[in-house]
Amino acid sequence: MTTRNTPGTGTGDVDPAVRAELDRLRDSIDNIDAAVVHMLAERFKATQQVGHLKARHQLPAADPTREARQIERLRTLAENAKLDPAFAEKFLNFIIAEVIRHHERIAEDTAAPTAG
Amino acid sequence: MTTRNTPGTGTGDVDPAVRAELDRLRDSIDNIDAAVVHMLAERFKATQQVGHLKARHQLPAADPTREARQIERLRTLAENAKLDPAFAEKFLNFIIAEVIRHHERIAEDTAAPTAG
Repeated sequence: MTTRNTPGTGTGDVDPAVRAELDRLRDSIDNIDAAVVHMLAERFKATQQVGHLKARHQLPAADPTREARQIERLRTLAENAKLDPAFAEKFLNFIIAEVIRHHERIAEDTAAPTAG
Repeated sequence: MTTRNTPGTGTGDVDPAVRAELDRLRDSIDNIDAAVVHMLAERFKATQQVGHLKARHQLPAADPTREARQIERLRTLAENAKLDPAFAEKFLNFIIAEVIRHHERIAEDTAAPTAG
């Protein structure tokens, strides 16, 4: 038996078998999200170090050549993993935008260490 | 010795020791990105299954209660991993927006299987 929900009413009164399948998939999604959050924490630890290195040696926060290479590489990896390469590119741009914000903040702090 | 670059000239002529450190950090970043791309590929495999399940049982593509719970959980995980919780939330919203686009597409295809 399948309980049919009106769109917009949530997933509260679905068939128990459907509910169980949904829960199983969501548990996997939650596990993956936890893994990704921890990966991203490591990634930002590395980019923070890059930021300090760049600030100390007055290198620019953004590096278009490096970014173009990263995007190409990730698009290829995504294709092989059957992930939409356009999404992988969008994802990397989303991360890089955050990293550049961090680098600019580090550069400002390094340039004016006694400010305030 | 430290070579000082004018901002905007890239990282071509930096001190070899700085260059080596930068390369080391970037190798780690590239490894993490490869891991995350493969994780996201798995995540979308799971959400595609959720999408088909929802379409088959006419459940809505978005689920605000589930999303609120996911955001709370990820913010806590992020805090423990010393990742900015605001960024973790922004990241999840970015992913969810893509997932909802997929679910809507699946629902359209399921509603009109003989279209075209």
